[in-house]
Amino acid sequence: MKIIVFGGDGFCGWAAALRLAKHGHEVLIVDNLSRRAIDLELSTNSLTPIATIEERVRIANEKIGKISFNFLDIAKEYDKLRDVIQSFLPDAVVHFAEQRSAPYSMISEDQRRYTIDNNTSATHNIMSAIAEVDTSIHMVHLGTMGVYGYDDRFGEIPEGYLDITINSTKKSASIIYPPAPGSIYHLTKVMDHFMLQYYNSNWGISVTDLHQGVVWGTQTEETRLDELLINRFDYDGDYGTVVNRFLMQATIGHPLTVHGSGGQTRAMIHIGDMAECIRLAVESKPNNHKVRVFNQIAETVHLNSLARKISSLTGVEITYMENPRNEENENNLMVSNEGLKSIGFKPTLLSDELMNEVQEITEVYRHRVIKEKIIATTKWK
Amino acid sequence: MKIIVFGGDGFCGWAAALRLAKHGHEVLIVDNLSRRAIDLELSTNSLTPIATIEERVRIANEKIGKISFNFLDIAKEYDKLRDVIQSFLPDAVVHFAEQRSAPYSMISEDQRRYTIDNNTSATHNIMSAIAEVDTSIHMVHLGTMGVYGYDDRFGEIPEGYLDITINSTKKSASIIYPPAPGSIYHLTKVMDHFMLQYYNSNWGISVTDLHQGVVWGTQTEETRLDELLINRFDYDGDYGTVVNRFLMQATIGHPLTVHGSGGQTRAMIHIGDMAECIRLAVESKPNNHKVRVFNQIAETVHLNSLARKISSLTGVEITYMENPRNEENENNLMVSNEGLKSIGFKPTLLSDELMNEVQEITEVYRHRVIKEKIIATTKWK
Repeated sequence: MKIIVFGGDGFCGWAAALRLAKHGHEVLIVDNLSRRAIDLELSTNSLTPIATIEERVRIANEKIGKISFNFLDIAKEYDKLRDVIQSFLPDAVVHFAEQRSAPYSMISEDQRRYTIDNNTSATHNIMSAIAEVDTSIHMVHLGTMGVYGYDDRFGEIPEGYLDITINSTKKSASIIYPPAPGSIYHLTKVMDHFMLQYYNSNWGISVTDLHQGVVWGTQTEETRLDELLINRFDYDGDYGTVVNRFLMQATIGHPLTVHGSGGQTRAMIHIGDMAECIRLAVESKPNNHKVRVFNQIAETVHLNSLARKISSLTGVEITYMENPRNEENENNLMVSNEGLKSIGFKPTLLSDELMNEVQEITEVYRHRVIKEKIIATTKWK
Repeated sequence: MKIIVFGGDGFCGWAAALRLAKHGHEVLIVDNLSRRAIDLELSTNSLTPIATIEERVRIANEKIGKISFNFLDIAKEYDKLRDVIQSFLPDAVVHFAEQRSAPYSMISEDQRRYTIDNNTSATHNIMSAIAEVDTSIHMVHLGTMGVYGYDDRFGEIPEGYLDITINSTKKSASIIYPPAPGSIYHLTKVMDHFMLQYYNSNWGISVTDLHQGVVWGTQTEETRLDELLINRFDYDGDYGTVVNRFLMQATIGHPLTVHGSGGQTRAMIHIGDMAECIRLAVESKPNNHKVRVFNQIAETVHLNSLARKISSLTGVEITYMENPRNEENENNLMVSNEGLKSIGFKPTLLSDELMNEVQEITEVYRHRVIKEKIIATTKWK
């Protein structure tokens, strides 16, 4: 198949692009390298020394498969975006081209506005161009578990839709799961979802929306093939996700920073599983009668249990900090992931072995840590 | 009170601004005059000869009350927007500054993108600036009945929220009414609503979202006070709403153009009632525990009955045209409007007398009609 990966230079996008190329697909990465620009803005870095996109693509073509790159801001350069889709004529597009950090989206009015404007325009521009060029192109969008809110207030979280009965009329209905976004970033994914729903219903475009959990890990089978293919590793207070941050902290002997009581539960997925789920979603185009929603997660993890586990493995202590987020101290979370399993997904669970693999990365690159960037300082209010 | 009316030069915005000024409020109109620019783009016009905004404001200050004007594109000039809010320090803002025609939003990719980008950024910029400047400012947003979809699939349409039972757990919940937008324009109002919900829940900003029906009529008590205060009257295929279009057609002997079977039912409100509802909403700030939603409608009207009534009054025949919209041929609609009634709204129903008043306008300005613009040509797909 021919596949455009929007945002294919980022943490998830790069791993997914390589996995798709490895399986014989022709991949075009479209990216404006905004994730690298945000490193500059925040004076932070990837723990791993990532190569330039040109080097990455050159090595990927030698060692993996057919990948090309186009520098483009899809939120702002609509005509070029449409031309790229028109000339490449993909079977599917995978859309990672959004600002993806909840804390970053809450820093100040500048980051709020950038996140809303960039994410909304990027998603809409892709759908508008597909409606214009070829409505048979399959849109695979990266959503987030955060659209559901962080609890199982309605029971186990189903995949996108909820079966209800209207109290006044006793009529039954299947509705889009009532959104409860917890940050500006999560809000953009709610808004995205309604755009995808409308383009599906009015123009009959096939859409898969993947509501993804927190991603951990660094390397996949493909990124491991050459040092110049190495994936990025975020550990800073805004972009670092919890497992990777704890493991990096353990490596340098920094206390594990738990926000609030640690009573939060989160849905998790390993970076290799993420790439595999993207491949499975792309290779199984849904019909266009309804937006297909999958919960892209392997398991749910209680943060205190995770911190204690890493603490006991490494001997590093735990420190409890004021929670900068506006969220409940404790939450339960039960999530269905039957959809991806039904098309072949075999979840990888958090294990000592895999965590060791991450720690090998943090061990090798520990000298690159900017210690001042570890603590989350962005307040939600 | 001090009130900013964003989009205060438009059809509803102007009438609302005058009503507020008449009741002693100090009004600042902020507008980029985009509605006038779209007339140029579409080579159409207001049937009534509207004065320039400077003339309007000058006469309004002589005859009605305190109104000023600031030319500003709030979707693009954020820093100026924040400065205006900071220096005027309103008690409330009323937000009409959105592209408001469903057909226009479906013309082509240009209008789709303009509607999404303009409406989303405008609404978000206002909320972001309120969060920054003063979270006690009350946001009054013009939504649309179209967020609910055009039927009563769940029974009578309540005001924003729906009481349900989750089938799997039998838990009860009150949820945001599941959206079912029928155009890109309606989609933006769905996206707006979720932004308003988030700013309410995270920053505690008081919000009223008015889900408005189709507006008809031209003049209000205030716009009638001077010819230079006259309100705009849209009759073209994209911006003209059904009652006004029928009445203008009747005046010039053009057949009444019914789209599809005419089996559609729509919620309606007179322009004077609209202005009154805005005043009532502004003067009754809700608490900040929840977004307050009112259905801003007077009655529901069946389009065939409406066409037959105007036909029998005027002798002009009815012509049935292919429906350019992607919608059901027939729909029922029952809508609650108890919220606005509970704070003093007394609905004005469609009556021969009021329709005569509109026909006086069409009679006086019939020479200004551009006949080629009457027929709706924008297809939904």
